[in-house]
Amino acid sequence: MKLTILIHCSDQPGIISSVTQFIHRNKGNIIYLDQHVDKEAGVFFMRLESEFDMDFPLNKFKEDFNQELAQKYGMKWGVFEDGIKPKMAIFVSKYNHCLYDLLSRFNSGELQVDIPFILSNHPDLQYIADQFGIPYYHVPFTKDIRETAEQQQLDLLQEHDVDFIVLARYMQIVSPKVIDVFPHKIINIHHSFLPAFAGAKPYHAAFKRGVKIIGATSHYVTEELDAGPIIEQDVTTVSHSHSIKDFIAKGRDLEKIVLSRAVHLHVARKTIVYNNKTVIFS
Amino acid sequence: MKLTILIHCSDQPGIISSVTQFIHRNKGNIIYLDQHVDKEAGVFFMRLESEFDMDFPLNKFKEDFNQELAQKYGMKWGVFEDGIKPKMAIFVSKYNHCLYDLLSRFNSGELQVDIPFILSNHPDLQYIADQFGIPYYHVPFTKDIRETAEQQQLDLLQEHDVDFIVLARYMQIVSPKVIDVFPHKIINIHHSFLPAFAGAKPYHAAFKRGVKIIGATSHYVTEELDAGPIIEQDVTTVSHSHSIKDFIAKGRDLEKIVLSRAVHLHVARKTIVYNNKTVIFS
Amino acid sequence: MKLTILIHCSDQPGIISSVTQFIHRNKGNIIYLDQHVDKEAGVFFMRLESEFDMDFPLNKFKEDFNQELAQKYGMKWGVFEDGIKPKMAIFVSKYNHCLYDLLSRFNSGELQVDIPFILSNHPDLQYIADQFGIPYYHVPFTKDIRETAEQQQLDLLQEHDVDFIVLARYMQIVSPKVIDVFPHKIINIHHSFLPAFAGAKPYHAAFKRGVKIIGATSHYVTEELDAGPIIEQDVTTVSHSHSIKDFIAKGRDLEKIVLSRAVHLHVARKTIVYNNKTVIFS
Amino acid sequence: MKLTILIHCSDQPGIISSVTQFIHRNKGNIIYLDQHVDKEAGVFFMRLESEFDMDFPLNKFKEDFNQELAQKYGMKWGVFEDGIKPKMAIFVSKYNHCLYDLLSRFNSGELQVDIPFILSNHPDLQYIADQFGIPYYHVPFTKDIRETAEQQQLDLLQEHDVDFIVLARYMQIVSPKVIDVFPHKIINIHHSFLPAFAGAKPYHAAFKRGVKIIGATSHYVTEELDAGPIIEQDVTTVSHSHSIKDFIAKGRDLEKIVLSRAVHLHVARKTIVYNNKTVIFS
Repeated sequence: MKLTILIHCSDQPGIISSVTQFIHRNKGNIIYLDQHVDKEAGVFFMRLESEFDMDFPLNKFKEDFNQELAQKYGMKWGVFEDGIKPKMAIFVSKYNHCLYDLLSRFNSGELQVDIPFILSNHPDLQYIADQFGIPYYHVPFTKDIRETAEQQQLDLLQEHDVDFIVLARYMQIVSPKVIDVFPHKIINIHHSFLPAFAGAKPYHAAFKRGVKIIGATSHYVTEELDAGPIIEQDVTTVSHSHSIKDFIAKGRDLEKIVLSRAVHLHVARKTIVYNNKTVIFS
Repeated sequence: MKLTILIHCSDQPGIISSVTQFIHRNKGNIIYLDQHVDKEAGVFFMRLESEFDMDFPLNKFKEDFNQELAQKYGMKWGVFEDGIKPKMAIFVSKYNHCLYDLLSRFNSGELQVDIPFILSNHPDLQYIADQFGIPYYHVPFTKDIRETAEQQQLDLLQEHDVDFIVLARYMQIVSPKVIDVFPHKIINIHHSFLPAFAGAKPYHAAFKRGVKIIGATSHYVTEELDAGPIIEQDVTTVSHSHSIKDFIAKGRDLEKIVLSRAVHLHVARKTIVYNNKTVIFS
Repeated sequence: MKLTILIHCSDQPGIISSVTQFIHRNKGNIIYLDQHVDKEAGVFFMRLESEFDMDFPLNKFKEDFNQELAQKYGMKWGVFEDGIKPKMAIFVSKYNHCLYDLLSRFNSGELQVDIPFILSNHPDLQYIADQFGIPYYHVPFTKDIRETAEQQQLDLLQEHDVDFIVLARYMQIVSPKVIDVFPHKIINIHHSFLPAFAGAKPYHAAFKRGVKIIGATSHYVTEELDAGPIIEQDVTTVSHSHSIKDFIAKGRDLEKIVLSRAVHLHVARKTIVYNNKTVIFS
Repeated sequence: MKLTILIHCSDQPGIISSVTQFIHRNKGNIIYLDQHVDKEAGVFFMRLESEFDMDFPLNKFKEDFNQELAQKYGMKWGVFEDGIKPKMAIFVSKYNHCLYDLLSRFNSGELQVDIPFILSNHPDLQYIADQFGIPYYHVPFTKDIRETAEQQQLDLLQEHDVDFIVLARYMQIVSPKVIDVFPHKIINIHHSFLPAFAGAKPYHAAFKRGVKIIGATSHYVTEELDAGPIIEQDVTTVSHSHSIKDFIAKGRDLEKIVLSRAVHLHVARKTIVYNNKTVIFS
């Protein structure tokens, strides 16, 4: 059995030694250990992968971990068993490139998740859901029917026991109610290198400003628009010879790759959020 | 004799054909031609390098160009003779990496300019000017003596017949009076990918926001701070494991390379400014 | 009507002027012109886009172009009418990421081609062809049946009037007979930055050598393996912490993006081949 | 007192736990720990930074470490005290960009080393050594005087107690005798992305091959030319429009940055060599 353990707590001497001893005593073989200390914030972070025997008593391990380590050091921690696929809902609007990219990775087994459904405020991408045999829910979203739509979303998410949500160019603000239920569990792709060009039409803004580089940013969604913890960013060069249409076309390739990388990191339990920032163990 | 010709005007049919015929008639051999049309703005841009005989009558060529082409099409244009070195003043404060980079390129003949002087609001980098045998003027700049300082700067620039100014991490706002005299002839390096993190302490702001990429931007100085036409940008990746000190160290390498590229482009007459943007012929 | 004109010939004075005059006389409005001179090889290259009236006599234009320009300057040239979709065959083996990427771009209208069929030496990817409603031909290829297989390929290509072929990770050497019929019309993706790691298992070789960068290269197929004219390359960083499996996963994203860029350039008539190199007008 | 500890040995259970306990028992506060396991080779690597009290008994610590840990696990290990500057010799030929870059970093305190001397097979760069006040030894190197030259080099290196050598574009093969005395302590910069274009004139070869990317590689020197363990690589894009001269100019910027990064990593004890590869703790 393989476990991934994520820890963060205030920085104190002896944590690494205590944790590794504990694993060792429980006959675990550490196959990966990475740690980080944010000295300004005084916070310690650790990610650890360890292999155990098949008949390893997981529940007892968790109890002991809690009593011997977590309480002592004031840890926030999680233990994740390898091979259990998280349930990922995808929200889309009308653009299909990020959706196709996620589904083709899913279909080829590269992305180890279950996808209970795709949700959209438009009916346009139903045909892609059909291509891949995934349920597609069309949930219109306008001011008038906002509360109904929110409730429909929450019902679907609960019903399907969804673990996290990917906004694959979902051109709609996610309701605070949904964010509350999925804190740091909604991954968005924004089509600029944030914090530049937050909000609507970033390619148009970038074109107007005459930048020589455009980018894409995946981040966890928080209540403040495009201001959540950044998971991954990438850029590509542009020049005066590129039109806004060219920006959009070049950007599409960035968006899908950057979003997929973020989803991979999340699924592999390689992200920890604190102070509206991320620690990414890669 | 080799000439570089820069043109821009409102877009009209037949410009390229007229210009190339004109060169051909004047026994020029076009060795480089690049053009661009900004369709939104309706502006035509052209850069052309052409070789002529040694006894080529440059003044007559310019007169004819003006009468036959420039007036007809309403062109803004410039003709530049190869081999004439522009005079470049360097303004610095206390950081030395951009200064060293420019001077080593100058010293090895890579950068084809004259450097009449280095100016600083601090005495600290005098020793580098001495290493390279270039005059160094210490012109303090504080609120109280602002007008005196501006005048000293303008006097020095005029006295030495300076063509353009490079702000090699000059941590001081350049006076509008100086900008007026050198429109789109002052090149700054800002230590972020603009428009993100304009103003003071961009590395600190980038660290706080938790970005995964930092950058540097060279631009022509206009009255609005860090908002002038962008010449060149580049970025490098960072992670949670980098401290602000690491951001600054990684950024230094970006800054000096991005600034030097911008200076090269300016010296090679490969930049045209319009609508607060640049066309870069590369 | 919009035409794209590609020209190359030995470098001579007056070509640009002659061509632009010719366009102008034919009432064309040049909307894009880019030219390049390889001074070592003494070769002139030009790409030009021009708009003409609807009732423009294309055949006469071509005849005149040939007589007035092409013969005079010894040009190799091509005139391409906008909006005519080339027919693109896709060859695959078992990897699906490049295929999915091409088909999703095709499906969303980003890639303006017709895809008459997908051909494979394995039956594995039939299901993807079915998802997108494109015919899939399984043509096994082994030493024993080599000639039969070649003939089957040629028959299919001819029957469907194919313009160019994309090898989307087709792990099989293409027969010289097929290459002969499609000179510089077969685009391959090789999973290394060529010329490093040509041939089989480049990720394994890269891992063994301990490189810090891996890459992907798209090129036109010639008889010599992985030695054809390079269209596009890109790289990504790796470290000691990446396994061969990680190299392969990171490489997949490179491969599909680099291949798609090359296909786009080819379709947009932005490539000219000479001396086993490419001129890419971008 | 701050120590950096580097360890590698065959992979065994319990190493991390043993080492961190040992540090903890010696009242060290671990401020950085990174480890890596090469599963194919079965080798464990660790880098650790730890702070100790001022009156910490370093020699006893080393003895105990050796007896309790190193012998038990069969470790190759090193303990390095912070703040002791290594002695770095620089070898150059005629190109000055890497030399200038290293010296300006040295002069500004960015590079924490001592530079006892610069050695060259040409007298050309004496003036730069003079600018920075560093001794310059002109040691001609030709076939006829090879043994004398080697001996001169070895004498100078020994006399000045040199720790490691940087070949800052030293266009000469380093003698095996010198390599023997400085195993994995000679850092070279090669102007291509190795293993492509090893040997002489890589930019010419890259131009001929028509690549769209050029690179630079810093590596430890071994007897086989350009085949030593790679420390750092970077690339930049080129196109058909770049001449060999342009390749060389673009490459210069890569070379100096890549070399400086490698020197920084070496000085910070962030490199471990094994199987002709490197582990880079960054």
